[in-house]
Amino acid sequence: MDSIKTPKAENPRLLGGSASHAAVAASFFGPVKLVGVVGSDFPKRYIQLYERHGIDLQGLQVLPGKTFHWSGEYEANMNNRRTLLTELGVFETFSPTLPEAYREAPFVLLANIAPALQHHVLDQVRRPRFVAADTMDLWLNVALPDLLKLLKHLDALVLNDSEAHQLTGEDNVFAALKKIHRLGPEYVVIKQGSHGSILSGPGGLFLCPAYPLRKVVDPTGAGDAFVGGMMGYLAAAKGPVDRHIRRAMVYGSVVASFCCEGFGLQRITRITRPRIDERVKELERLTRF
Amino acid sequence: MDSIKTPKAENPRLLGGSASHAAVAASFFGPVKLVGVVGSDFPKRYIQLYERHGIDLQGLQVLPGKTFHWSGEYEANMNNRRTLLTELGVFETFSPTLPEAYREAPFVLLANIAPALQHHVLDQVRRPRFVAADTMDLWLNVALPDLLKLLKHLDALVLNDSEAHQLTGEDNVFAALKKIHRLGPEYVVIKQGSHGSILSGPGGLFLCPAYPLRKVVDPTGAGDAFVGGMMGYLAAAKGPVDRHIRRAMVYGSVVASFCCEGFGLQRITRITRPRIDERVKELERLTRF
Repeated sequence: MDSIKTPKAENPRLLGGSASHAAVAASFFGPVKLVGVVGSDFPKRYIQLYERHGIDLQGLQVLPGKTFHWSGEYEANMNNRRTLLTELGVFETFSPTLPEAYREAPFVLLANIAPALQHHVLDQVRRPRFVAADTMDLWLNVALPDLLKLLKHLDALVLNDSEAHQLTGEDNVFAALKKIHRLGPEYVVIKQGSHGSILSGPGGLFLCPAYPLRKVVDPTGAGDAFVGGMMGYLAAAKGPVDRHIRRAMVYGSVVASFCCEGFGLQRITRITRPRIDERVKELERLTRF
Repeated sequence: MDSIKTPKAENPRLLGGSASHAAVAASFFGPVKLVGVVGSDFPKRYIQLYERHGIDLQGLQVLPGKTFHWSGEYEANMNNRRTLLTELGVFETFSPTLPEAYREAPFVLLANIAPALQHHVLDQVRRPRFVAADTMDLWLNVALPDLLKLLKHLDALVLNDSEAHQLTGEDNVFAALKKIHRLGPEYVVIKQGSHGSILSGPGGLFLCPAYPLRKVVDPTGAGDAFVGGMMGYLAAAKGPVDRHIRRAMVYGSVVASFCCEGFGLQRITRITRPRIDERVKELERLTRF
């Protein structure tokens, strides 16, 4: 759960978390199986929200105790934020065992969590076709060896530009991409917020635009929505990943744009696939030359 | 003349200045007439450099005294820079009178200079078809009324995102664009450095990519090269501006990328039109989805 403060509003205990944002984002493209943990204080309406999006909750543990709670405050530019509070709750001792049905998942997204836990989840999946992971500065600081170990088992790493800088020591994002490939992943995606994202993969570079927003209400979870939408689109597409990944990123980018237009999941849970398709078409027009 | 220090090198008294960068950038597309002033210390080889690019120098005054000299230092990320020294020299009392042949120019670029001087130049042009101006934070601070007056006579304003924020008070770049249109220009271009640029015009928005560079040697003048390349391409294109401006921006973006690959004009003076066309084609491939 996230309590989010912006210069214009304050919203306590919204449904948040990487898994929530990514799962809802992916749900527009096909079935999703969620892995996570919440406490006994977790509101029933949030469970219903997952269900309305057809998200499989076999892998969602409800344990006695409190749900993980993060609280943060954004500056006026909506880019810089600081953490006010982190309460781990039941998350502190979380070590998921995947339901049997989950172990055959062909597309696996290891959303932001300690890399050792990401690895523990991945080890339980039998023959995944495509594995992507997100990470954050915290793990680069406190669990770098675990992250480096995980990187050798990923198809794709998704991170933002300051994390790419931290991981490689490179100021230049294209130089950083080259170094990250050497650590394992065949695909590397660097998120740049309102500036879009960059893919480096077997098909070369792709410069993915961000959908232009005149007003950003709350960017929390936009990175998760981006990678969730991307993985959802990829999982639903027939044929090789390399043929679809550019479009998958554009779809992720559009879903993330909706995420930014409301607090928590408020906006993204009100959209439909045709609205997403519209913005993708608009991005085609906005980038054509 | 620019003396530029980066973490890796120091280069004293290179040929620099908005007019130099923009004129050389535009020269790849068609004839260019330059307006400017230098002192008697201005090296002959710099005059020859202009001449090699076929730049008309009737409007270049050579006056007794020293050439304008700027000195700056870049941080490791090559984005932040600070001014070490500014010596105005003969520039201090510069007030150009356009040669007769210049007064029929259909495409006018008012490169970065005091807005009152930009206005003074513009007033001497008879029936320009398309007038663009660049500016900088300094003029927003010390000559805002002059700049606001000038804006009413422009077709296009080109500025970077922090200047757009300063001019409008808007943190969001798309909200800022809307406000800038109300100040006069039908076309507004916001430069975002390595993140590309954004056009807002009668044909809507255009998100223009930056050419990916693994190594930036010196970004000085890249903004001038961008707008110079854009105006050069536009002036050479047949038909309405609105039909060509997207491609013109992409060409400007590519010329700016070459600018960043050498100190001063060192790299940009060694390229040819086919090399520019190659990178434009590459940008098409890098942005297609």
